[in-house]
Amino acid sequence: MNKVARMDSTKPRSDRTATVISILSQRFGDQLSCNPVIREQHANSTSWHPIKTPDAVFFARSTEDVAEVVKLCAAHAVPIIPYGTGTSLEAGVNAPFGGITLDLSQMNAVLAVNEDDMDCVVQAGVTRKQLNTHLRSTGLHFPIDPGADASIGGMASTRASGTSAVRYGTMKDNILALTVVMPDGTICKTGTRARKSSAGYDMTRLFIGAEGTLGVITELTVKLHGIPPTIAVAVCAFPDLASACNTVIASIRYGLTLGRIELLDEVQIRACNAYSKLTMQEKPTLFVEFGGSENAVAEQVQLFRELADEFGCESFENASSPEERSRLWTARHDVYWACLQLRPGSKFIATDVCVPISRLADCMVETHADIETTGLVAPIVGHVGDGNFHVSVMANTDDAEEMAKTKSFIDRLNRRAIAMDGTCTGEHGIGEGKREFLKEELGATVTYMRQLKATLDPHNIMNPGKIFDL
Amino acid sequence: MNKVARMDSTKPRSDRTATVISILSQRFGDQLSCNPVIREQHANSTSWHPIKTPDAVFFARSTEDVAEVVKLCAAHAVPIIPYGTGTSLEAGVNAPFGGITLDLSQMNAVLAVNEDDMDCVVQAGVTRKQLNTHLRSTGLHFPIDPGADASIGGMASTRASGTSAVRYGTMKDNILALTVVMPDGTICKTGTRARKSSAGYDMTRLFIGAEGTLGVITELTVKLHGIPPTIAVAVCAFPDLASACNTVIASIRYGLTLGRIELLDEVQIRACNAYSKLTMQEKPTLFVEFGGSENAVAEQVQLFRELADEFGCESFENASSPEERSRLWTARHDVYWACLQLRPGSKFIATDVCVPISRLADCMVETHADIETTGLVAPIVGHVGDGNFHVSVMANTDDAEEMAKTKSFIDRLNRRAIAMDGTCTGEHGIGEGKREFLKEELGATVTYMRQLKATLDPHNIMNPGKIFDL
Repeated sequence: MNKVARMDSTKPRSDRTATVISILSQRFGDQLSCNPVIREQHANSTSWHPIKTPDAVFFARSTEDVAEVVKLCAAHAVPIIPYGTGTSLEAGVNAPFGGITLDLSQMNAVLAVNEDDMDCVVQAGVTRKQLNTHLRSTGLHFPIDPGADASIGGMASTRASGTSAVRYGTMKDNILALTVVMPDGTICKTGTRARKSSAGYDMTRLFIGAEGTLGVITELTVKLHGIPPTIAVAVCAFPDLASACNTVIASIRYGLTLGRIELLDEVQIRACNAYSKLTMQEKPTLFVEFGGSENAVAEQVQLFRELADEFGCESFENASSPEERSRLWTARHDVYWACLQLRPGSKFIATDVCVPISRLADCMVETHADIETTGLVAPIVGHVGDGNFHVSVMANTDDAEEMAKTKSFIDRLNRRAIAMDGTCTGEHGIGEGKREFLKEELGATVTYMRQLKATLDPHNIMNPGKIFDL
Repeated sequence: MNKVARMDSTKPRSDRTATVISILSQRFGDQLSCNPVIREQHANSTSWHPIKTPDAVFFARSTEDVAEVVKLCAAHAVPIIPYGTGTSLEAGVNAPFGGITLDLSQMNAVLAVNEDDMDCVVQAGVTRKQLNTHLRSTGLHFPIDPGADASIGGMASTRASGTSAVRYGTMKDNILALTVVMPDGTICKTGTRARKSSAGYDMTRLFIGAEGTLGVITELTVKLHGIPPTIAVAVCAFPDLASACNTVIASIRYGLTLGRIELLDEVQIRACNAYSKLTMQEKPTLFVEFGGSENAVAEQVQLFRELADEFGCESFENASSPEERSRLWTARHDVYWACLQLRPGSKFIATDVCVPISRLADCMVETHADIETTGLVAPIVGHVGDGNFHVSVMANTDDAEEMAKTKSFIDRLNRRAIAMDGTCTGEHGIGEGKREFLKEELGATVTYMRQLKATLDPHNIMNPGKIFDL
């Protein structure tokens, strides 16, 4: 462990930051940028939160680079904001107290692929699509799919998941070990390549979901999975949200191994029809993927169809050729863009509640009614196999009244989920946006989280202002 | 959070302990026992480590009881040793510094079964067999199976797994939330019943595997799984360990969904033949379980057989009726007792390395050669789908020379696994026995584990002397 040099934290922040910038410039040349455009880009996530720019951006090329920057920032109490691809939905890359954004996108080497072990070692800046392209010849893939082509390091830091979590779990279930630069600059390895371990505290899981507030993840050993030999998809429309949800519950209880199971409400379908020039029924619709041997998939599709029929499914299309699958899945793929077009000029405000699946129909139906009463433009898309759904509020962020209405709608949504023994965030993280709700959700436990943060990061330099208020 | 009353830690330990015992006796009557037999029983785990008895045993009946005891012990700096069923293999229930053993076995209520959500809430003292009996009518089960009928709280505390981990993962993968009494007596809830969450640090995973050193787990929300409609087993003998290991790698790469896949070496088979009056070939033998629909299982068994044949499988028996399955699986079930009978009067010294599966054959073959050179009586059984195997050294613990030989064999085994990027413990935990190897395995990371421990448990009252040296 490194002894952090005596801090000059009595000096004003601007002086300390200037010192760090000057030292880094001399040492690393153009790996450091103070260009205002670059600084602003790095605070500009896929979120509606106002941008707060860092004082400089450092482009790291190695774990040792990161360790050097962290040591320097620790010595001068200057904030560090780790940055992957900037696709955070809760302003995780904002720099509310300035400091140095640590851009890891150049650390994009796949360091090892261990096919027999079905794992690989990557630098934090590798994106999920890049990794899957790299794996193309192996028959293996890294299946976690949050939609955006996020970096693996960033996905770990927000405990991301997405459409395939119902089958493969989340980032927490797919990482064997991390290399982390601690807030004092020490480089730590949190685990080994063993598939399971009972060796001390689970430091790997402590950093997964910590949103960069406990250290900088620089390398990850992740699990890989075999690509199923046969994949089929089905799309089926239901008379109402409850029937669709009940079909999902029945399928999971029945033991069907669903690859993905996504629900789009009628507003989302309408948006997708408009954007992707489709003619789908404007009804709550399930998009389902099955994978396995040819026989197993045929059996699963048939069983799923029977269950869907029982719950009043009104249309059922399925396909297994890549082209047909892709055509059927179009609406789901284009959700984000379809939302943006639904109300030109509006901003996309993401929500992310997750409830026990038995409460999913209640939660969605109540939320749907709330949207209608409030008069917001807000389609719903859900990773319903996990009980997780996103209401995308398309809001005019310049209209104070509308924003107040939006905020109180989101507050009610989060509280509704928490009251159902669920969470305000299934996969996006707390960031700046949900700090209040973390406290409502977990109460006294948050006090102990803060104690851990204060112990590992005594100067609060690691992504300050995220997860916790100051 | 509770303010812990000012500690009288300047007084001798015996005085402080006497004070706590006196207060607890008055307050709780016969929930506290100082009976020497009961105290000794509670330090007597399934381990060869010398017994270190606590000063008293407290039988908790509620989370509130636990909180009251912890607050009192915190105020007087008296150690607390959480106790489930005493099946720890690394002396997790020993009381090297005396104190109060907190027996949770009377906290054995199943508080809720949520069938649609496929989860349930249990008190920490519920055992896995008790839970599965309770679930009998639901078609669901809690599949984690470490062999012993351990308590769910104890299994969480050691991050246990066992034969079914290849399919269902370990305790870390099967817990949604915990109720924990913190070292200051505060009762915390670490999560909700949502299937996934990105709400702050993963406190659930921090307590799983912490071996009671960070707090006392009193309630758990665990995932349940559907019981497969059809189950089949196969038993097949191989000419050598490497062929058996390679069959496992190929099966997993092929995407077979194995329920369990266990390897017994020829010494273990010999022991089982003798104990269970069987006539199995004395060769490395795989015990495999398949589960799913009838068609899927038939397909999997056939594919597995083809793979096994490719690697020179010398005999192949399979069955799907419950009686036949049970008969075929007898040898695997009786491993522990067969080992004890292999060398009457000896003690069972467990080991627990886990390596990347591509190194499993190397690690087992080298270890096997080491056993032969050393002349120890030491059968091998492996949860080979995870790369985890146990060498059970049957040793005369009164023979100093043999114990020295055993110790140096185990040291070599642990170092061999660590050198192969594996771990010294796949599922048993560190306890008292592997503290040195934890440091060899994870280096600087252990320093930060200790910082977390010191922060949450400043008086080191929670199961002191486990995971870390003092």
